[in-house]
Amino acid sequence: MFPRNCWYVAAMAHEVSDALFPRTLLNEPVLLFRRQDGSAAAIENRCSHRRVSLHLGKRVGDHVQCGYHGLEFDGSGQCVRIPNQERIPPKACVKAYPLVERDGFLWIWMGDKALAAQTPVPDFSAVCSSPAYVGRRGDALRVEAPYTYNLENVMDLSHVSYAHQQTVGTQDVAETRPRTTVSAHGVEVHREWERTEAAPVFKRLFGWSETRRTQTIRFWPGANIQLDISSQPVGNTDPALVRNIRVVGPCTPETEGTHLKFSTMYRDFALDDADITQRLADAFLVTLHEDKVLMENQWRNVLADGAGAPMVDIAVDQAPLATRRMLQKMALAESQGQGQAQP
Amino acid sequence: MFPRNCWYVAAMAHEVSDALFPRTLLNEPVLLFRRQDGSAAAIENRCSHRRVSLHLGKRVGDHVQCGYHGLEFDGSGQCVRIPNQERIPPKACVKAYPLVERDGFLWIWMGDKALAAQTPVPDFSAVCSSPAYVGRRGDALRVEAPYTYNLENVMDLSHVSYAHQQTVGTQDVAETRPRTTVSAHGVEVHREWERTEAAPVFKRLFGWSETRRTQTIRFWPGANIQLDISSQPVGNTDPALVRNIRVVGPCTPETEGTHLKFSTMYRDFALDDADITQRLADAFLVTLHEDKVLMENQWRNVLADGAGAPMVDIAVDQAPLATRRMLQKMALAESQGQGQAQP
Amino acid sequence: MFPRNCWYVAAMAHEVSDALFPRTLLNEPVLLFRRQDGSAAAIENRCSHRRVSLHLGKRVGDHVQCGYHGLEFDGSGQCVRIPNQERIPPKACVKAYPLVERDGFLWIWMGDKALAAQTPVPDFSAVCSSPAYVGRRGDALRVEAPYTYNLENVMDLSHVSYAHQQTVGTQDVAETRPRTTVSAHGVEVHREWERTEAAPVFKRLFGWSETRRTQTIRFWPGANIQLDISSQPVGNTDPALVRNIRVVGPCTPETEGTHLKFSTMYRDFALDDADITQRLADAFLVTLHEDKVLMENQWRNVLADGAGAPMVDIAVDQAPLATRRMLQKMALAESQGQGQAQP
Repeated sequence: MFPRNCWYVAAMAHEVSDALFPRTLLNEPVLLFRRQDGSAAAIENRCSHRRVSLHLGKRVGDHVQCGYHGLEFDGSGQCVRIPNQERIPPKACVKAYPLVERDGFLWIWMGDKALAAQTPVPDFSAVCSSPAYVGRRGDALRVEAPYTYNLENVMDLSHVSYAHQQTVGTQDVAETRPRTTVSAHGVEVHREWERTEAAPVFKRLFGWSETRRTQTIRFWPGANIQLDISSQPVGNTDPALVRNIRVVGPCTPETEGTHLKFSTMYRDFALDDADITQRLADAFLVTLHEDKVLMENQWRNVLADGAGAPMVDIAVDQAPLATRRMLQKMALAESQGQGQAQP
Repeated sequence: MFPRNCWYVAAMAHEVSDALFPRTLLNEPVLLFRRQDGSAAAIENRCSHRRVSLHLGKRVGDHVQCGYHGLEFDGSGQCVRIPNQERIPPKACVKAYPLVERDGFLWIWMGDKALAAQTPVPDFSAVCSSPAYVGRRGDALRVEAPYTYNLENVMDLSHVSYAHQQTVGTQDVAETRPRTTVSAHGVEVHREWERTEAAPVFKRLFGWSETRRTQTIRFWPGANIQLDISSQPVGNTDPALVRNIRVVGPCTPETEGTHLKFSTMYRDFALDDADITQRLADAFLVTLHEDKVLMENQWRNVLADGAGAPMVDIAVDQAPLATRRMLQKMALAESQGQGQAQP
Repeated sequence: MFPRNCWYVAAMAHEVSDALFPRTLLNEPVLLFRRQDGSAAAIENRCSHRRVSLHLGKRVGDHVQCGYHGLEFDGSGQCVRIPNQERIPPKACVKAYPLVERDGFLWIWMGDKALAAQTPVPDFSAVCSSPAYVGRRGDALRVEAPYTYNLENVMDLSHVSYAHQQTVGTQDVAETRPRTTVSAHGVEVHREWERTEAAPVFKRLFGWSETRRTQTIRFWPGANIQLDISSQPVGNTDPALVRNIRVVGPCTPETEGTHLKFSTMYRDFALDDADITQRLADAFLVTLHEDKVLMENQWRNVLADGAGAPMVDIAVDQAPLATRRMLQKMALAESQGQGQAQP
């Protein structure tokens, strides 16, 4: 259904503290928490004894104590205590998952552990860890649709012209056929305009009516998205007047029919302007929820209408279809025992 | 499950305006709307591209624009525009349904289109389009039970003696065996009394205690019901003193387990009395909801208890059973490729 | 799934009056009510005619009248009236269940009727019908987990050390391995301490910090639990200073995945102290709901993870496993036609 041999975002780093934080990822119940030294851990959110969720228990030092019968586990999944019993059977341990904190994300590996070390963690440092950019990170947005719907949504931005007319949509996006580049490593979609209508949110923020603009969307596996938008005055030649927006948007399958979206909009201008931060974050949230409504409606309809219900592909589907095929190929290779690290 | 080669009510005419009005009918998602000239149209409520519901989009002239990627459809289901693409493939169209506006109803044909023209639209004009009658039309009532439960409910009015004691029920109805007439065209049930207790609502409205009364219920396919009740003083011979109530009550399957009920109570007396209109409509609504509770309970129990759970037929089931058999015969004939127009 | 040839609690006696009281028991819809002479009856909560729930109808003398078409039934399940029909077919009757009122419970027999008379009704009279004890009886608590989860919960009280730290839990319970006795008639678990920490609720009520204490839990089929706790000052030899708590806790399967818990805490001290009654009842309710959360979480996880998901047994599971095995053996014997009366 989805490739497992990839790094996925388990949570925004700020979502996880010393509290017990439960989350379903790739159909598995995961418990996230930080040890006393601040390092984050991810273990199975099921007591090995009677399958009670461990997040109903509590922290005892760096251990998690089950809230039912008191078994304790450490961040590596080892069972370290069974009340009134000296021998701890090896099968009393729970799963643990490799977890890496980077760029404000907690990246989890839920596939073949032997492949984790040789697979680089996705790198968003040029934006997320750069002082040149600012953005207000939110929590995960849960969407009741497959994660591929989100990838296909972003890889075909023609939808902004219809779904997001109040915030980022202008008619030119849908009317301009993009340049799509498919490689072994991912898919890239590019549009540019020497003169085009400014996005509604830019009209409101800066009084712009027209702009010179480029739009580049990149996908690479597991489920990583970066969207770069540059805007400048029409005919401009001064690099200082270029304004860049970058949307960092990895997502993670929760189940076959739901996903978590970790999207943040960054900018490289007016870094200290809290009002602009607020207004851009608000507009972005509106946009995310407009997409959520459409994706969830599509998924409900697909479930209701059955697998045989037709879908007609159109010209602008080139990038979404390439994205979907790349993931299907990876999932197929894994199911055939050729669990390759992600490209 | 249900015959398709019948005219069914898609909506009360007043429910549909230039807005995009979604409704599930016979298990299919239907979009209803009026064109700029006021004519109503019914098309599939699914974009052919990614199956998003078209009612999430908007009207553009007489076209419906999908809210996701901007495809446009006209009232005949033709896809008339795909952004950034010149050729529109024929399979990009969506289904359209014959729709006739008559007697305050929008009648839809969801079966074999070749049979629509030769099948007369049900005619309630003698009541609904007559100046002799007045009634307050409401919206559809959605009931979570098969539409046959509603037909069987109405074709055996003995239930009013138990279910509707606050409004229209008197003991005499259940105690009087009706005359039932089954023909190729439908089923009719008739009771009459020279002297009987007046219905509670008539007691309250007119101070009557007894009345001379007739009660006639007619069913004819697809799912049409008319109930005629005449009341007059005991021993009366003056036609001017006869008061007629007519309930026009077609219903439509939404799914196998739900239906929509389009019931209106009309009268031929005190036409201008808004207070009586209000009080009769209120009493009628109470009655409809009492039936809704019983039908939904019955259906939940049947689903929970399983298909093999026994039901004992009793004497008063003659008309409900005849109605059910007529519909089963029609559905069977259709499933065997003998799609006949309704009788 | 569960043995049927046992007496189960259908309701607390005070839950059932002359009103029509519906309850699902062992997957069957049951209607409970009292006749005019105060005796309680249990019949199938389905009209034989159209399967409407009889509790939607009303009482007519000692009969239950269906609220849809007026069929009437007596407390033995006989159909005693069909409107407008003289002959009442035998198959129009509904099921009836042996019902015995005892110790404040209504005990129902839902298995092979031939075995009911030879099976003694569970006897809680030493507590429930004794003037030496007082307790505040509540209504049934519905728990969305199999009834065996409740039995296993109570038969392993080590969980109080983790789940009920605010009310009855102290660390000593989990740390003390109990003496478990399994016989053909049931399972008994016993712990005792010459000096141990007093339960939090006793600390609050009586200012105790330590206590001499015994704890005995007994299970016997169908689903009967009694928990006896005696507390006295450390080193005490005066029988008058012994304080006894007895929890009477039968439960009943509602469906395979839900049960009803009829738990009451009794005491033999401060019988007239309404404040203590209230505070003990409050603390007990907190405890019951802490268990409900854990059992429902366990069941949801088991359903979600599938039958093959592992569970590791630990030392303290001896009594729960013996309880489960006894019930499985009884259910198996019944399914093989060896419907024995309960031991």
